Order: sequence, then structure tokens, then C-alpha cells
Amino acid sequence: MTPLKHIAESTVRRLSAYLRFLEDFEAQGHQTISSGELAAQGGTTSAQVRKDLSFFGSFGKRGLGYSVHALATSLRTILGLGREWRVIIVGAGKIGAALAQYRGFRERGFTVVGVYDVDATRLGRALDGNVVRDQTELEDDIHRLKPEMALLAVPAEAAQPLVDRLAKAGIRAILNFAPTPLVAPANVTVRSVNMALELEILSYALVNEKE
Amino acid sequence: MTPLKHIAESTVRRLSAYLRFLEDFEAQGHQTISSGELAAQGGTTSAQVRKDLSFFGSFGKRGLGYSVHALATSLRTILGLGREWRVIIVGAGKIGAALAQYRGFRERGFTVVGVYDVDATRLGRALDGNVVRDQTELEDDIHRLKPEMALLAVPAEAAQPLVDRLAKAGIRAILNFAPTPLVAPANVTVRSVNMALELEILSYALVNEKE
Repeated sequence: MTPLKHIAESTVRRLSAYLRFLEDFEAQGHQTISSGELAAQGGTTSAQVRKDLSFFGSFGKRGLGYSVHALATSLRTILGLGREWRVIIVGAGKIGAALAQYRGFRERGFTVVGVYDVDATRLGRALDGNVVRDQTELEDDIHRLKPEMALLAVPAEAAQPLVDRLAKAGIRAILNFAPTPLVAPANVTVRSVNMALELEILSYALVNEKE
Repeated sequence: MTPLKHIAESTVRRLSAYLRFLEDFEAQGHQTISSGELAAQGGTTSAQVRKDLSFFGSFGKRGLGYSVHALATSLRTILGLGREWRVIIVGAGKIGAALAQYRGFRERGFTVVGVYDVDATRLGRALDGNVVRDQTELEDDIHRLKPEMALLAVPAEAAQPLVDRLAKAGIRAILNFAPTPLVAPANVTVRSVNMALELEILSYALVNEKE
């Protein structure tokens, strides 16, 4: 539930979307792109694109558009994607196991370096190069493997104690899949993904917007 | 990528969070709650809570707080949760299968009525009461089962043709897990969940906010 400071999360989401389109354009051999083309791909306006990019200094030249390669490089730097991030997954149930095997993470520079559970029947199971380890190993492994991020895919009642343990062990960014509000120290960012909430937003759209 | 009209998605997200807290409070036997208590749970301010709720008419009395039961009931109606929604899942790979078995959906009134794939090795597999069916059955099943929503958990290149098929068959709300931009008719809401993007937002937070 911790919101990003200074720059709205919606801006970061759009920057991330722009980067995806730029990488597609680059793969197709395009050299330049206009704010209008970026806007059309991202379902927004040229003015919004220019405003989003202006947060981070000046890109592009009026009338000539943006250099696809230079803008993509800048966005990767802005988003912290010019490097590898080491990720652990706590909870190896259905969601944790699906996350551990999700190819999209490695493609974007996120490497899963450890998967943990408390359930003896799950320990030792191989998930794309990681073997599920006992949750009691968490602190030692964080010290040894130095992951920067943790994905939390555990039952609601187990989530807060784990946030406390992870924060104490030095993790500074947590993506939570448990449907429960969490508190964390100010230097730890916690984001929550809630699948049912995503459907509730659709349900809201169905009953309120488009009848 | 289709944004909600009129009321910001961030507002809908907060309303959904308030409802969760109200249900917890109700289960604990509380009768009333102040905007300050709701704000503390949701990581926001009393003024924001009052503003969010004011969109939908007047709730609560100054100094007395909100009736937990009445406010929860109103929020469920606002969010379209006073009913069952029928959901199909297209794609029965790791993510689709995890979604098909996600208990949180049914608890919130979302019932999975069909799961589809094109891969012969997945057809017939049982996933919590649903058997994976051939994707060629989609149109007939939509006509017969009348689902309102579809979850799309297919490879990027398969997503757009499926959005076209689903829209044509009458689906008006789609939650997309494929990492690709999608276009849909104006009367169809498409939301995208991108796991790598969630991590990118964390990575942005790590490099920009809390060093």
C-alpha cells in the first residue's frame, strides 16, 4: 500500500509501457519516433508523453521526434533496468510456483535466486533452476545471496511477520500477493498485487461506465 | 491499456481497499468507523477518504463516523460486487492454471465457468472444478454460459486475435496477462496485469526514491 513518492506510479507505469514500445520499434529497425506515435501505442496523448518525459530532462527535438535507441537507453536508466536485480520468492504454492517459472522476469533483468516455503511437501521441488528451500534459511540466504527484492506469495496471516523478517534482513522492495494490508519501515517499498481487486475494477467498469 | 472513464482507477482501488478493511472491522464486531481509521488502514489521509466517498453521495455523520455495515453495503453496490460474475480463462499454462485455482476469486463473487487452451496436452486437465476445453469451443461456450469477463493468459502473439474473438462474442471486460498492448472496441474494457512491470516499479523505487 506504500505509494511511490514524488513521481506518480501512473507515470512510472507509462514510462515502462513506452520502453516496451521503443524496444519493439528498435527491433523493427526504426530510428526515430514521434510523441504522437508513442502516445497512440500507449493509449494516451502526445501532450502526456511529452510531459512524462520532461520530468527527466530534455529528450528529442521538435519536429524530428525522439531517437528510439537514445530514449530507450534513458528510460532503462531511469527505471533502474540497466542492471540485474536479484529476487527471492517466499511461498511456493500455486502463485509462487507460477512466478518462479515466469519467463518475463529474466527477460527484464529480474533473476530469481531463491524460492522458500514452510510446507515439507514442497521443499526440494525444482522450479526453473531453483529448488524450494526451507523458510528457516531465509536470513542466511539473504545475507549470502544479497537479493534486492522479495515476492511474497503466502497466506494472508503469514504475510506481515514475513515483511518484518525480510525488512530486518535487509530487503528494501517487496511485491506482495497476499490479500492483506501490510506495514513496513519507511525505507522499504511494499507493493501489493491483488488478482481479485483487478477483477473488482473490471466489475466497477461493467456496472458504472459502459451500460 | 484502456483507462476507466470519469472516476480515476486509483479511486476505485482505494474504494476496494476500504471495503476490505470494513469487512474485517465488521467481522471483529465494530459498528462504526471514522474516516481517520479508514485512512490509517489504507495508507492515505482522512481528507482523501472523505473525498473518495463523497463521489457517491453522503455517507456517515460528522463526529459519529460511518456505519461499518451500511458503508460496506454501499461500497459493494458501487463496485458491482453485490452479485456473481462469471469468468472464463483463456490459456491454461502456468499462469492460467494458477488463476483457475485461485481461491480469492470465488470469495469475492467471481466464478470461473470455463478454461480454454489450444495445446492438446492441456485439454481435459481438471482445475478446481473446470476441465480445460478446446479453444475452438470459445464462441459456443460464451453463448451458452454467458460469462461477463475473460482472463487472458496466453503468449503475446496470441492475445490480440483472442481479444477480437472475445469482443465479437460479447465479452465486455478482459483482464490481460500477456505482455503486449491490446486494442478493443470502445464498449470493451481491457486491463493489463504485467508481473515484470510490477517489478520495474519496485526497481524504479529502489534507484530513485530511497537511496
